[in-house]
Amino acid sequence: MLAAAQAASNTPLLWAQLLGTARRAMATSLLHVAPPEELLRPLAVPERLLLGPGPSNVPGRIRAAGARQLLGHMHPEVLQVMDEIKAGIRYAFQTQNRLTLAISGSGHCAMEAALFNLLEKGDTVLVAVNGIWGARAADIARRLGANVHELLKAPGKYFTPQDIEQHKPLVLFITHGESSTGVLQPLEGLGELCHRHGCLLLVDAVASLGGAPIFMDQQEIDVLYSGSQKVLNAPPGSAPISFSERAREKLLRRKTKPPSFYLDMGCLANYWGCDGEPRRYHHTAPINSFFSLREGLAMLAELGLESSWERHRANCTQLCQGLLDMGLELFVEEEKARLPTITTVRVPEGYDWKDITAFLMDEHGMEIAGGLGPTVGKVLRIGLMGCNSTRGNVERVLGALRDALQRCHRSRL
Amino acid sequence: MLAAAQAASNTPLLWAQLLGTARRAMATSLLHVAPPEELLRPLAVPERLLLGPGPSNVPGRIRAAGARQLLGHMHPEVLQVMDEIKAGIRYAFQTQNRLTLAISGSGHCAMEAALFNLLEKGDTVLVAVNGIWGARAADIARRLGANVHELLKAPGKYFTPQDIEQHKPLVLFITHGESSTGVLQPLEGLGELCHRHGCLLLVDAVASLGGAPIFMDQQEIDVLYSGSQKVLNAPPGSAPISFSERAREKLLRRKTKPPSFYLDMGCLANYWGCDGEPRRYHHTAPINSFFSLREGLAMLAELGLESSWERHRANCTQLCQGLLDMGLELFVEEEKARLPTITTVRVPEGYDWKDITAFLMDEHGMEIAGGLGPTVGKVLRIGLMGCNSTRGNVERVLGALRDALQRCHRSRL
Repeated sequence: MLAAAQAASNTPLLWAQLLGTARRAMATSLLHVAPPEELLRPLAVPERLLLGPGPSNVPGRIRAAGARQLLGHMHPEVLQVMDEIKAGIRYAFQTQNRLTLAISGSGHCAMEAALFNLLEKGDTVLVAVNGIWGARAADIARRLGANVHELLKAPGKYFTPQDIEQHKPLVLFITHGESSTGVLQPLEGLGELCHRHGCLLLVDAVASLGGAPIFMDQQEIDVLYSGSQKVLNAPPGSAPISFSERAREKLLRRKTKPPSFYLDMGCLANYWGCDGEPRRYHHTAPINSFFSLREGLAMLAELGLESSWERHRANCTQLCQGLLDMGLELFVEEEKARLPTITTVRVPEGYDWKDITAFLMDEHGMEIAGGLGPTVGKVLRIGLMGCNSTRGNVERVLGALRDALQRCHRSRL
Repeated sequence: MLAAAQAASNTPLLWAQLLGTARRAMATSLLHVAPPEELLRPLAVPERLLLGPGPSNVPGRIRAAGARQLLGHMHPEVLQVMDEIKAGIRYAFQTQNRLTLAISGSGHCAMEAALFNLLEKGDTVLVAVNGIWGARAADIARRLGANVHELLKAPGKYFTPQDIEQHKPLVLFITHGESSTGVLQPLEGLGELCHRHGCLLLVDAVASLGGAPIFMDQQEIDVLYSGSQKVLNAPPGSAPISFSERAREKLLRRKTKPPSFYLDMGCLANYWGCDGEPRRYHHTAPINSFFSLREGLAMLAELGLESSWERHRANCTQLCQGLLDMGLELFVEEEKARLPTITTVRVPEGYDWKDITAFLMDEHGMEIAGGLGPTVGKVLRIGLMGCNSTRGNVERVLGALRDALQRCHRSRL
């Protein structure tokens, strides 16, 4: 406690004393590894405006929820919060699915949960690859011994039902919000098409949920997942997911257990009260991440999905117009295929993307990102998600970019 | 924003207005699932003294760290925090291993990370089962297609080198702190024994780390993992893990990729800066869980491992004496085999464990737990971990139990 008070007091002299004490203690101790000096200094993290592809900034209300004192993972109040999360996900996904819950990990972990549970060795899966997420899903499916077909499109493009109709997979994976390219994938007709061929539709909505319309039930999506750190404005660490009745039946027909116990939907369904049985302990859930996620979903419910979609659309349109007015070129040509949460703009001639992102970070305390996977070196990515999707932030990022274009030209550096 | 302010104001009338507005909005909207009423009320969670087997209470300093504004998962300040976490884990584990990092999930997820990476289909693994954790590790190893041998001991008992010598596995799994039974497994000689037979030693220290001595390098442990929510007093959601050079070589010799990309130690080693290569994006890490974990490790470094061990030992001894003085019977007979963080005491004749735990929760705002797995119905489990391991809490829980024994006898209910 004394040591803690000293370290917190932020006085170099006291740290030195502390380290001296620690080193002297080592001389007479059993320990072979000393307390690390860098840990005896206070935690140092600045505040920044996060206008990259996520995580987004976290409003005070959500940060406060995450900072609440812990409860046990089986306490009735925690089970109640989990029930509220389920209701909030059903609203955000527009679904009545009973197998709806949050995974104890980030959006990527939800992708694994979907594939681990849906696929068995030898199952055929068609993966629509037009950016990093499809490529990653294909990698995971191969690890599971699935028979993986990749349907390729150039980054920045999307898929049509005709692209997909010629294959006969058990599962089709497609990304609704392709955050590496800035593409919004139209979902109309895909579910119906899949079901005509006995195929399940698996959709990644990590970057789009709450920012662009999605209707899980009406669009006949079988598995849908998202993340907490994009439009929902909670810290990363929990991820909404939902399975249709069709998908649930595939889980029940499995001949083998999924490779992961942590992500086994049968166990999770029970822990989340989705199977009608008394809830049993499964794993120690990230309880305060659930508190934060609950608040993120509550804020979305209060604002209303349609208002949220409209806000993201309007601010994205404004941003795109501003970028075009500056003489920049948008990476996604068709306006309707642009993701309202993350805008990709081509790195202009004569500039290095790293100079621009570093300039915004250093001079404007603002994050925007370069490309990812197939778009590395080609684009800048600007995210306006949840509470960060405001007219003020559109103006702020446009102003900062204008500044960067003046200051970062290679001929000036 | 208005809606948020109303919901936060906690006035039933305003909620009703809000719900009315929401319902009217639905009448003209595209939505088929309405905003859930329970989400339009403020988050309700009480504060409790958590003296169960974990999670433990979280000190204000760690809660404040977790409530800091987010940064991006590749920002230099976050990479710095990750480096500090690595240093803190090396200290807590007493190791110099370069492949040392935190998993983006709870302790259970670290168990999967260890097994997913160490084992391939057909590998022989010997699992020491004397409680729930061995049983769970065996379940996961079977999901991976490993050749699993279980070495069984009655709950409350521990293993000796002689128990283990007769098998020839590639990996031995053993639990240092068996939180379901309250057993502290002696580790002396096990690493040497394993290495004599070309076997790797995998140790679960979720419930013991920081509360009982462990020396990863000297004890020749090949893979060691723990959780954030026990002695480290951070919320659940991140989990320290470390691999010896021997274990790392086994990973490099793998013929197949691990089933999980999220938990692939090759990718994680790069993201955590353990492989000497430039760090690449792998997944969106639970950044604020890392801030909390960093503070938990810092507090342990400030206090000093030896002081922490001694504090847990002394308070556990005090607790055990108090329980014996009350006429209760400890579940673990040998004093040296008692876990200093979690004490198991037999449910006394004439009582139902549920009456006692419910009484403590309702009348004393205090959690203690019943048994888990093989100890369900047989024991009560009392946890004194990290900041909760104090003389005051020992007295508080003994007082509450004395009260419960007077009030919860079946003849009185």
